Amino acid sequence: MPDHSLDVVGIGNAIVDVLVQADDRYLAEHGLTKGTMALVDEQQASRLYQAVGQGVETSGGSAANTLAGIAQLGGRAGFIGRVRDDQLGAIFTHDIRAAGARFDTPAASSGPATARCLILVTPDAQRTMCTYLGASVGLDPQDLNLEMVAQAKVLYLEGYLWDSEAAKRAFIAAAEVARANGGEVALTLSDAFCVERHRESFLELVDGHVDILFANEMEITALYGTSCFDEALEQVRGCCRIAALTRSEQGSVILHGTTSHTIAAMQLGTLVDTTGAGDLYAAGFLHAYTQGQPLEYCGRLGSLCAGQVVTQMGPRPQVNLRELAATHLP
Amino acid sequence: MPDHSLDVVGIGNAIVDVLVQADDRYLAEHGLTKGTMALVDEQQASRLYQAVGQGVETSGGSAANTLAGIAQLGGRAGFIGRVRDDQLGAIFTHDIRAAGARFDTPAASSGPATARCLILVTPDAQRTMCTYLGASVGLDPQDLNLEMVAQAKVLYLEGYLWDSEAAKRAFIAAAEVARANGGEVALTLSDAFCVERHRESFLELVDGHVDILFANEMEITALYGTSCFDEALEQVRGCCRIAALTRSEQGSVILHGTTSHTIAAMQLGTLVDTTGAGDLYAAGFLHAYTQGQPLEYCGRLGSLCAGQVVTQMGPRPQVNLRELAATHLP
Repeated sequence: MPDHSLDVVGIGNAIVDVLVQADDRYLAEHGLTKGTMALVDEQQASRLYQAVGQGVETSGGSAANTLAGIAQLGGRAGFIGRVRDDQLGAIFTHDIRAAGARFDTPAASSGPATARCLILVTPDAQRTMCTYLGASVGLDPQDLNLEMVAQAKVLYLEGYLWDSEAAKRAFIAAAEVARANGGEVALTLSDAFCVERHRESFLELVDGHVDILFANEMEITALYGTSCFDEALEQVRGCCRIAALTRSEQGSVILHGTTSHTIAAMQLGTLVDTTGAGDLYAAGFLHAYTQGQPLEYCGRLGSLCAGQVVTQMGPRPQVNLRELAATHLP
Repeated sequence: MPDHSLDVVGIGNAIVDVLVQADDRYLAEHGLTKGTMALVDEQQASRLYQAVGQGVETSGGSAANTLAGIAQLGGRAGFIGRVRDDQLGAIFTHDIRAAGARFDTPAASSGPATARCLILVTPDAQRTMCTYLGASVGLDPQDLNLEMVAQAKVLYLEGYLWDSEAAKRAFIAAAEVARANGGEVALTLSDAFCVERHRESFLELVDGHVDILFANEMEITALYGTSCFDEALEQVRGCCRIAALTRSEQGSVILHGTTSHTIAAMQLGTLVDTTGAGDLYAAGFLHAYTQGQPLEYCGRLGSLCAGQVVTQMGPRPQVNLRELAATHLP
């Protein structure tokens, strides 16, 4: 690998989360499918918000959560995403920089507000998301800091970007720059519905254009149109160099060529809110990976970070991840 | 008491909290006194924010927290306070209404942004606050919904309002209306520094113009210029009809004429963040009080609500307080 001054650079939607407690009846009444992400427009977002209880706000965004986690672990991280120059945009900007990541995508001075995601946390700790993409949907190639992309050992992309044509073009442009500079490209499939919306495109991408793929069970089975995890697993094997497939409390499976590593989930306390579990798994994995650790260790650090974030409300760890890793995986 | 259609109406600063974890060194470096509230201007607020880690945002404001708590307990609650028509103002407005309280103070369409309080939570779970009063400082008599005030069994006022001349005038106008309509007036002293800033004024107020006084140990001793709690206790006795004095883990003392009730603190889990403890004590107390419960029960419901809120981050209970009360104080 050439000399890179950043470990991981991520591109994703720059979102502020509004976390509220809700029950199954609310999900049913509003036609929401538990555990998934639905895109909503401004009016739908407003109607859903009016019908929920008191919330807690925190910076979010899938890739942004991962990059914040990598920075907290001590990795050299950068993030690219688009906010508006409003109060929520300022909060997002503060938080990702405070975590230690580089973030210098210019805030939009006109157009839609900063993206917001209403996250409904049910009593079983599952999260169901309704996202108003707002300003983030306008990310396009000219917003990319390609100098930063070129410096990355790994460029990390979220599948959610596929919901915006401009962001998708930005994504592809960035992947080409990363590869040309000796970097690897990692992708998370993000959400089963997102996979279904863009299945053909993802299949083409995964087959040869992605070095490291992250997906959970719902996403990988949606990609291959099967209900069987093992079948999806055999289909993805060999398509990308490494696939890290997560299965909630059943841990994860890491495929690399013909080898497989099965990694146990880690439980660090009472399950409170699963928001960010996949994002933090990717954070732990990629941090270890860019430090040159073996794949099994990468999976264990992923499990540890995911195991921590599910014990709290919201996707940005409120504990020192570096100390946590030093304690649990010395 | 005449027939009132609201149990408690509160007037206070309408604030969104930004909760961050900080250490004692941060407090020392920025000249902050642990456990107190400092007023900051917009520039100081920005400088302090830049120097802290990732935050979590939640609606706050002392009286607002109390009224949200009363509404959550099932009381008929109203709140008066001033936000700007910005994103944080919309969050504040949503949350207090979602809790079940009436809130119809018009949002300012110009001038400073919605008030923001940076709350530094140290590893000992203590909270230290830096408040930028923003739009809330412009609350004045014409913003008051005096019809709502007239409907209240108890009008609840936070001492923090004394930091704004206009808000203080609004406060006094409201107290006169409440009294003229057979309501009682309750006051919280809010903060020891706030008491010191307005000591003469508070002494005059407490002596005959307040029916129910809330204060913690630091505040009541500051009011009477003594370091001895028992001395302050004897000084306040008889000045107002009821005084509810809180002492953190030592519980509270309720004075009524010549009688005293000592109420134990309640511990409902690990101490996480003391933000809102006093506010939720007042919520439990006033809810029970306006339901005609004896003072000892009022104190116990106060202890229960305070005991819950300190087990979570932020001042708005994330559990159902009504169910909690039914379980613990049947």
